[in-house]
Amino acid sequence: MTSVLDNVKPEVRALRAYTLEAREAVVKINQNENPHELPDAVKRAVLERALERPWGRYPPFDPAELQRTLAAFAGWRADGILVGNGSNELIEALLLVTVGAGTPVVIPQPTFTLYALLTKILGGRVVPVELGPDLDYDAGAIAEARQRERAPLTIVCSPNNPTGSTLTVEQVDAVCAAGPGLVAIDEAYFEFSGATVVPLLEKHANLVVLRTFSKAMAMAGLRVGYLLARPELVGEIDKARLPYNVNVFSQMAAEAAVAEKDALAASVAEIVRERGRVSEELARLGGVRVYPSGANFLLVELFDRAPKDVFEQLFARGILVRDVSAYPRLGRCLRVSIGSRAENDALIAAMGKPL
Amino acid sequence: MTSVLDNVKPEVRALRAYTLEAREAVVKINQNENPHELPDAVKRAVLERALERPWGRYPPFDPAELQRTLAAFAGWRADGILVGNGSNELIEALLLVTVGAGTPVVIPQPTFTLYALLTKILGGRVVPVELGPDLDYDAGAIAEARQRERAPLTIVCSPNNPTGSTLTVEQVDAVCAAGPGLVAIDEAYFEFSGATVVPLLEKHANLVVLRTFSKAMAMAGLRVGYLLARPELVGEIDKARLPYNVNVFSQMAAEAAVAEKDALAASVAEIVRERGRVSEELARLGGVRVYPSGANFLLVELFDRAPKDVFEQLFARGILVRDVSAYPRLGRCLRVSIGSRAENDALIAAMGKPL
Repeated sequence: MTSVLDNVKPEVRALRAYTLEAREAVVKINQNENPHELPDAVKRAVLERALERPWGRYPPFDPAELQRTLAAFAGWRADGILVGNGSNELIEALLLVTVGAGTPVVIPQPTFTLYALLTKILGGRVVPVELGPDLDYDAGAIAEARQRERAPLTIVCSPNNPTGSTLTVEQVDAVCAAGPGLVAIDEAYFEFSGATVVPLLEKHANLVVLRTFSKAMAMAGLRVGYLLARPELVGEIDKARLPYNVNVFSQMAAEAAVAEKDALAASVAEIVRERGRVSEELARLGGVRVYPSGANFLLVELFDRAPKDVFEQLFARGILVRDVSAYPRLGRCLRVSIGSRAENDALIAAMGKPL
Repeated sequence: MTSVLDNVKPEVRALRAYTLEAREAVVKINQNENPHELPDAVKRAVLERALERPWGRYPPFDPAELQRTLAAFAGWRADGILVGNGSNELIEALLLVTVGAGTPVVIPQPTFTLYALLTKILGGRVVPVELGPDLDYDAGAIAEARQRERAPLTIVCSPNNPTGSTLTVEQVDAVCAAGPGLVAIDEAYFEFSGATVVPLLEKHANLVVLRTFSKAMAMAGLRVGYLLARPELVGEIDKARLPYNVNVFSQMAAEAAVAEKDALAASVAEIVRERGRVSEELARLGGVRVYPSGANFLLVELFDRAPKDVFEQLFARGILVRDVSAYPRLGRCLRVSIGSRAENDALIAAMGKPL
């Protein structure tokens, strides 16, 4: 052994880290955040509670109170819910308990990078399934890949980051029925699509649903996600959940956000309206294709301008979007989050001017 | 396949989950928490900052400000520091990048359960090294096991949970020199021992140090830990760190706690004094052996009473300690955290009465 790095697994050495360059901008529409903050009164109430609760004491081993709140909120049983430090952590736990050397994991592409990154770190084998010609999901191809590979796990982000593509409830039903392997549906953006597969949990013992507070729930800074599945499966995934993983402050804030669900629903409705408007306005400019989206962002394909150039030109005007041109098949694309009305206006104006 | 649980790896199915029964008590000395809370003024300042910072926006991809603060605090370079959602998360990341099917991991026993649990989930092979006859560390045996197994990773909790056993800096130096594999020293309790191996990072490229804000730093509820190593190694471990893993509130609180380091040092000094007093008083009662401890707890061996009985009798008097009798070699032991002076007095009084 010549280097201390030889202690690191070769599959990890070969990986490039997931990263995001730190940039600041007045109009920040690069991370699919909710532009509408929780009301100050709600925040103050959380902070008051935080002062009463000792900081030096561990969170409860199981966040039972928050699990019950989420059960009522999501319409599923509390013993079928795991809470995580963001849904990323629950994706990791799910992969930890199912993926070892050579395990096939079916993952559509392009999609959220983390699924494949963690699968590779665990020595698993990513079985990619291409999106259709219009970047829509090919449910038949996903079902076929699951069967062919006898894959113990399939992960589908629906609505999909970064394309906005969405599987219907009927399609997820069919995908789950196509084999005994687990099917994890990452519903990080489901609020913006108006549909959820949670009711299918009654029917399919192999279904796992992931949710986050980072998008519609306006809490990206506080890191809360949850996982829904049958209790016996939750019990196994829970073995890979780190103890005391959700800090007490974020637990309180999540409770407060759920209590504010009507205000958040109004915020989601506004974002969905704005998504329609931004999509139409950008399409009207010409030279772009705007893909249909079930999420709070749009995938924009540029016909005659390089994404990196447009990214930099927008940034020079104070607008930060996401350059997704390094993803497979998205070589000509940018991803733009739906911001506030003023932020969206700024984007439309900047895209319309000769850059 | 007959059950959906067949999708879960057999090594996971075989595991019992790490868990802790939820119990409440007036005197809570079961989790090695710091009984001295951060001052209210410090907390209020953090809460004020939390109100100014948008909750709907992600934390920075790399918590650069906190890394710089920790670098100055710990005496190591900022690019050699990773921050985690508790040190548990960094232990997991370290194991993820080094452990695959059959990888030997040297772990003294008895020790903190999580190391072996995660090693097994990853398909690794735990190579246990027994503590010495007095439950002290056998540095020679650890070094020998590393060499014999050519282990890419050795994990030692020092001071050790739940025994209090501590490797000296000289012993860690020798263990690191005994082979090219990584040596991770979990310094969760180092403040109570008065010694750290961080200066050895200059000498040993294979050394990794783990730290937490959950014990001396009085922030168990907020989940902050950090890892120190050479930058090239940190870069590899970072590949398994989840993006945006430390929430903005906890980052602010950690900054505030570091700024309060003089007050926290006084709290540590008080706990160390109390540890000496409690140890002497319990020993004086007879019928017990109190092991030397470099941490903020004591391991108490009961000569003629069953630990489960004493645990329940203490609980009936409002005192919650940790029953560690299920650990290898600790079948007659309880672990008691050092609490406030009044809490310690309550423990001593309760242990002294015929129960």
